[in-house]
Amino acid sequence: MRVLGIDPALRTTGYGVVEGTHVRMRLVEAGVVRPRASDTLERRLRELHAGISDVIAQTQPESIVIEELYTTYRNPGTAILMAHARGVLCLAAAQAGLTVHSIGHSHVKRALVGSGSARKDQVNAMVTQLLGLRRAPEPEDVSDALALALAFVNMSPVLERLGRVHG
Amino acid sequence: MRVLGIDPALRTTGYGVVEGTHVRMRLVEAGVVRPRASDTLERRLRELHAGISDVIAQTQPESIVIEELYTTYRNPGTAILMAHARGVLCLAAAQAGLTVHSIGHSHVKRALVGSGSARKDQVNAMVTQLLGLRRAPEPEDVSDALALALAFVNMSPVLERLGRVHG
Repeated sequence: MRVLGIDPALRTTGYGVVEGTHVRMRLVEAGVVRPRASDTLERRLRELHAGISDVIAQTQPESIVIEELYTTYRNPGTAILMAHARGVLCLAAAQAGLTVHSIGHSHVKRALVGSGSARKDQVNAMVTQLLGLRRAPEPEDVSDALALALAFVNMSPVLERLGRVHG
Repeated sequence: MRVLGIDPALRTTGYGVVEGTHVRMRLVEAGVVRPRASDTLERRLRELHAGISDVIAQTQPESIVIEELYTTYRNPGTAILMAHARGVLCLAAAQAGLTVHSIGHSHVKRALVGSGSARKDQVNAMVTQLLGLRRAPEPEDVSDALALALAFVNMSPVLERLGRVHG
């Protein structure tokens, strides 16, 4: 099972590909797509879409997980801008024939640490340990993307029983 | 001046192309893109992106206006879904080398009817009159898209003086 996790943002979108089963996983590739902050919204979306399309083509994931957005940001305009970014990421997945899975922040924490209110450093530590890395992946956007992919792999035995994976 | 106006939505995205100056305008083409409602979000975004990319290729607009989104919808989740759609529409514009202009609902009303709180039927009537049509364009999504394009043409002498068009 090869999974691409994406932490969507306009400024720095982290991505991470992991491979394996929920018993043993390894890191395939991870990084960020950083559209020029000085560019117009539509050009940044174009860079983001091209960047993630490249990652999909090169790493050939079977599943894609993109973090779910919430409407409870301090600034509601932020959610709208992030959703523009998430839209072009979903598009890149569909253009590659892939289904998008959505997992919310607290479900990622619960899947990896056991509590929906776990601290960021606890999640980072679990990502580092599960992938057998020497230190936590940086920047944080990469660690968040890997956490999504790992949470999906961890949850997939349950999701499969529920018929929600590969559906 | 040839302008494409787009009223973004996941269900029915209206579009309308007008040509002319703020003194005299004509309708070039208008219609809707309607992704299958039963499809997944990412597939609907793919249909929307492909549909609008076709419209841009066929009608070759010089400017694109996409309605601005607000965070004040009754259901905040609606704004997030609409922003996914708006994201792939902005992407299609950028991929065609075009700059996206954003106009809010009340500015469209003010530009066409003279008041930001004008009723929908007043805007429809003005669209019908300005384009010399026999009756109001249907469905409403098309009329809204044409209103955006016409508002942009009406506002452009001012915007040009401010250096905000073609910039």
